[in-house]
Amino acid sequence: MSQNLPAPSSSTDPVDRIREALDEGDLTTVEAILKDLHPADQVKVLSQLGDEERDRCLDLYEAPEIGPLISESFGRLREHLLDHFPPDVLAEVVQELDSDEAADLLQDLEDHAADRVLAGLSFEDRAEVEPLLSYPEDTAGGRMQREVFVVPAKARTRKVLAELRKVGRDLEELQDIYLVDNRGVLAGVISIFQLLRLELHTPVVEGANMDPLFVTPEEDQELVASLFRKHRLHSLPVVDDTGRILGQITADDILGVMEEEATEDLYRLANINEASDLTEPIIRAFRRRASWLTTNAVAGILSATIVSFFSGSISALPALAALMPIVANLGGMGGVQTATIIVRAMALGHMEGASPVRVTTRQATVGLLIGLFFCLIGAAVAYSTLGSPGLALVFGVSLALILLLSGILGSVIPITLKRLGFDPALVSGGLLTTLTDSIGFLLFLGLASWLLF
Amino acid sequence: MSQNLPAPSSSTDPVDRIREALDEGDLTTVEAILKDLHPADQVKVLSQLGDEERDRCLDLYEAPEIGPLISESFGRLREHLLDHFPPDVLAEVVQELDSDEAADLLQDLEDHAADRVLAGLSFEDRAEVEPLLSYPEDTAGGRMQREVFVVPAKARTRKVLAELRKVGRDLEELQDIYLVDNRGVLAGVISIFQLLRLELHTPVVEGANMDPLFVTPEEDQELVASLFRKHRLHSLPVVDDTGRILGQITADDILGVMEEEATEDLYRLANINEASDLTEPIIRAFRRRASWLTTNAVAGILSATIVSFFSGSISALPALAALMPIVANLGGMGGVQTATIIVRAMALGHMEGASPVRVTTRQATVGLLIGLFFCLIGAAVAYSTLGSPGLALVFGVSLALILLLSGILGSVIPITLKRLGFDPALVSGGLLTTLTDSIGFLLFLGLASWLLF
Repeated sequence: MSQNLPAPSSSTDPVDRIREALDEGDLTTVEAILKDLHPADQVKVLSQLGDEERDRCLDLYEAPEIGPLISESFGRLREHLLDHFPPDVLAEVVQELDSDEAADLLQDLEDHAADRVLAGLSFEDRAEVEPLLSYPEDTAGGRMQREVFVVPAKARTRKVLAELRKVGRDLEELQDIYLVDNRGVLAGVISIFQLLRLELHTPVVEGANMDPLFVTPEEDQELVASLFRKHRLHSLPVVDDTGRILGQITADDILGVMEEEATEDLYRLANINEASDLTEPIIRAFRRRASWLTTNAVAGILSATIVSFFSGSISALPALAALMPIVANLGGMGGVQTATIIVRAMALGHMEGASPVRVTTRQATVGLLIGLFFCLIGAAVAYSTLGSPGLALVFGVSLALILLLSGILGSVIPITLKRLGFDPALVSGGLLTTLTDSIGFLLFLGLASWLLF
Repeated sequence: MSQNLPAPSSSTDPVDRIREALDEGDLTTVEAILKDLHPADQVKVLSQLGDEERDRCLDLYEAPEIGPLISESFGRLREHLLDHFPPDVLAEVVQELDSDEAADLLQDLEDHAADRVLAGLSFEDRAEVEPLLSYPEDTAGGRMQREVFVVPAKARTRKVLAELRKVGRDLEELQDIYLVDNRGVLAGVISIFQLLRLELHTPVVEGANMDPLFVTPEEDQELVASLFRKHRLHSLPVVDDTGRILGQITADDILGVMEEEATEDLYRLANINEASDLTEPIIRAFRRRASWLTTNAVAGILSATIVSFFSGSISALPALAALMPIVANLGGMGGVQTATIIVRAMALGHMEGASPVRVTTRQATVGLLIGLFFCLIGAAVAYSTLGSPGLALVFGVSLALILLLSGILGSVIPITLKRLGFDPALVSGGLLTTLTDSIGFLLFLGLASWLLF
């Protein structure tokens, strides 16, 4: 049970209730139902409505409510929202958002639309947001917000508390205070809780961590997330090359980063474009998925060519055709198992310092054991059903070899990809199974043709 | 660049330096190198050492340093650590840890060892930890810590600040303060930052959120994580059926939960046991992976049986054997693409309220489009290389049908699994590709035998 489950009293679906009210032209009720929901739930409801229904609902929104709505939206609805509201309204929206969310919004607009929104901003707001637009979205710079609370490193607790009460009125929430020297260079960090425990006349440095962690804006967001996990941070300052504070990243931003990185790894493994989701337009889904499947199709042509070399053997012994997919599939699946463990270990930083040779040897050993196991089982099943000891032997030996190989390739490919500067998760995108399929067919049909004919 | 990268001065690997110092019997240096590292890095170093080297290092640890080390450890090293230290040392360690980490440690011990550690605790510490042991690890109860800071709802700011300064000395960090009525029932929540902005004589309720979110201990951790993401929480109180506070979950715990859930989904998709990692013993890795591959092997026997029905056709036209894996593979991959998008959308809560029929229809449409695309390409390539219009037609039609079907099965199976109360991610564990393989072979070879002979 949690408080965000719908209360039993309002048992009807908000989508149905909104449709009803729209039919009756009762916009006051529509507005009441919608705005009673959390923005994330408004997003869910709006993406279930038809185009015309949704537009009627959107006309009920004012700038202060549009910001949270856009920030929570994703995929197709996000495009609709950015399209629906005119640049002057979006400029108002951008002014209300934190600078990191404002930058995300601007980066999702077409260039000319973004320019028009920027033109509608005040000088100060533009100065806050514009520097953020230059950083790629998946870096520390792309994730940071410019809003930080800094105090001189030599300040006393009383002064900082007073400052906090004054400036604090503009801020929704704050956990860490940064201490800077007189050139604006980061010198330390103190949480509000630690600040509270100091006597009023004490200099804040006495409760502060004067050796704080920091990152530069070009740092990859995956490394930033691992710093948060490892050091249980609430916030992390982003500094330029001279150590001056540019902004900060907060823990709630990192929850979003981790979600995104997990989706990315999962989609790579399943051979999907990372921007895909349930709501993308059908034509785009078709184009994206078909283009990824093309790799598999090309791989298929390669293995079909290999199989066709052996048409003579298959024609004479069609049981080969029945057994060969088993060799290829177990090899592919075994390779994906190994590669996934390696890629995940890399993502979590568990591979740092580990010897690639030792890791590969280990995985090869596991592959060999699995191979010997399926060699025995496979040979026994093949012999008892097909009655040919030669075929059973060839089948068993092929299984052993392909599974040993899957352990080796499943380790070597992601390790090599990473060494060469590519994303190791690309291993599963087709390269690995193309190899295991082709080699599996070649091994099994080759051995069979050599030994049985 | 980030501060946790090794400084250029200490360019040699800590593992090598520790080995050297161990060889020279210089334990002071070993201790200095190790304890200069973050506990997570100590874990990395220790898991790279041999058994005897590691044990010599562990003898240098005292109870206060053992806690963080065990908390950061995982897999094989964690088992070693829990084995290495005697119950009385572990009892000391447990006393120093937060109650949620203490409970995790106790849950990982064998029953008799856990009893002996519990017996070594003071009455108060046992009372803190024991209730946590009854909740499964993946629930709110399993994730919560008992340490909370509560004040009476009618308290004034001055009183709360004074209390905070006093009690605060025992706490490392704190963000949210819970307000309770005189029966201990949760009434509100206020962050320290919000508290600071109140005048000293103001009752804290004036700055507090008096309608706070909460969960009960049996709530699933995935839902808890989605509440943190959605509401950007720092902490979430856990209450019993009467609303009394049992403990709290903090944002840094949730980073760990999200990491775990992402690993679980990824491993399910890749057909791996969720407890697998790089460091598991080889024999265990063999047993776990072989048992998951057995599903694929059984599926392979099923499709081999189907293929063997058509030995006559294959013998007469061995090109069938070359083309049939392409039909099965594209069908399987297309199904995995669809299923992954559905499963991920479910995990992120994007499926709530969406109509299953509409979702399936959409995915079927995408599947049909992809099918028609590969139908044309496949037929053209097959005709130009093999010269048989009949075979090209059968190949193309089979591709169209299997890809349409993969869109339907990829949606229907996870949706049905979830309806029946199973983990929808199980779809990828073999069920889906078993179906697409078998149906793919049956379709292609069946159509070919019917139309071409």
